[in-house]
Amino acid sequence: MMTIYSRRDIDLMPSRYRANFVNCLSGFKSANLIGTQSKANGANLAVFNSVFHVGANPPLLGMVVRPHTVRRDTLENILETGEFTINHISAEMVSAAHQTSAKYPQNISEFDAVGLTPEYRKHLSVPYVGESRIKIGLSCQEVIPIKANNTHIVIGEIQEVVAPEEALHEDGQIRLESLNGITINGLDSYYRAQFLARFDYATPE
Amino acid sequence: MMTIYSRRDIDLMPSRYRANFVNCLSGFKSANLIGTQSKANGANLAVFNSVFHVGANPPLLGMVVRPHTVRRDTLENILETGEFTINHISAEMVSAAHQTSAKYPQNISEFDAVGLTPEYRKHLSVPYVGESRIKIGLSCQEVIPIKANNTHIVIGEIQEVVAPEEALHEDGQIRLESLNGITINGLDSYYRAQFLARFDYATPE
Repeated sequence: MMTIYSRRDIDLMPSRYRANFVNCLSGFKSANLIGTQSKANGANLAVFNSVFHVGANPPLLGMVVRPHTVRRDTLENILETGEFTINHISAEMVSAAHQTSAKYPQNISEFDAVGLTPEYRKHLSVPYVGESRIKIGLSCQEVIPIKANNTHIVIGEIQEVVAPEEALHEDGQIRLESLNGITINGLDSYYRAQFLARFDYATPE
Repeated sequence: MMTIYSRRDIDLMPSRYRANFVNCLSGFKSANLIGTQSKANGANLAVFNSVFHVGANPPLLGMVVRPHTVRRDTLENILETGEFTINHISAEMVSAAHQTSAKYPQNISEFDAVGLTPEYRKHLSVPYVGESRIKIGLSCQEVIPIKANNTHIVIGEIQEVVAPEEALHEDGQIRLESLNGITINGLDSYYRAQFLARFDYATPE
C-alpha cells in the first residue's frame, strides 16, 4: 500500500521524525570519517554520510557540510589548512566512527575520545585514520554555498590514495565488500553490502 | 599490504581503469532512476548513482550531472520543465535500471526501451517509475556549476513522496532494506544491504 506524503505533510512532521524520514530519501549513503587539523585544537575527526563522486579526471570528491553542528569544525579546519582526508569506515570501526558525532569540547580530539589512531604522512598536514582500509588525501578546490538551506558543498581534489592492492580488481575497481566496507541509511543505521550483480557498459542492444 | 597511489599514479592510469578506481573512492552510492519530460521527445529515464541528501527542512536532495553523456538530456529536461523525479531502484529492477544508461536515439524513451512504466500524477509534469517502491517528486531549486571539471550539481526541493507506509519505522526512518533497496559500488556493481547496527544520537558520555 503506497502512501502519498505531500510537501505539507512533510513540513508538518515533528523535527526529528522529518530528519529521519528525509535522510532516507536519497537512498543508501557512503560512510566516511573526515580528518582535519586545527592549529589551535589539533586533530579533528567527524563521521560524514555525504561524500559523493564528482569526477575521475581530475579525481574529485564532494561532500555536504551542514551549518551549526559539531561538524562545522571540519569546514573551518579545511579553510585553515586547505586540506582534509577521507577515510572509509569498515564494519569493525562502526561504533567508534559513529561516536565521533558527539559534541566533544574543542580541546578534546575525537581520535582520542573514540580510540582511533591519527596517522600523518609526509606532504600532508592533516591526519588519516590508521584503522581505515582506504584513505584519501585531498586539497580543497571549491567551497560552494547552497542558497536554499545555508549548507556548503566542499569539492576536494585527490592528491593521494592509500589502499590494499589485493582489493583491486584487474580493471581498477576496488571491491569495497572485501574490505568490510559499509553503507548508511538515514542518520544512524549502518549496513554491510552483499554483492548482487555487475553489468557491462550498456548499449542499446 | 597497503599501496600508496600518488596523484601522478592516478593521472597515469588508463582512462577506464581510472574511472573504475576513482568511482569506488567515495564509498557505496545511492541507486536511483531520474525521470524527466521533454516537450520534443517525451519521457526520459536515466540511472544515477550520485543523488545525495542536502537537508531535511526544507527537504532538499542534490545530484551530480556530468557533461557530454546521455544523461545531459536529464539536465536539459530539468531546465525545460523545472521538475524531475527520483525513483529508488530495488533488486528486482536492477537490470532494467542499468540498461537506461545506454545511449538510445532521442526519439526512443528509456521507459519503453527497458520495460519500465512511466506513471504521471497530478500537479507534476514529469513521470515517476511505476515499479519503484519509493518515488519522489521535486522542483529544481539551483543548478550549480563545478568549475573544476565542468559538471553541474542540481539541487531539488521535494514536493511529494510516494512510499509504502509499512516500511516506515515509528520514528520516521524508512527501512530501505525491507523494500529490497540496493547500493552501488563504482560505475556498475550493485549490492543488497544487510543491517549491521543502529546507534543512538551520540553524546560525549
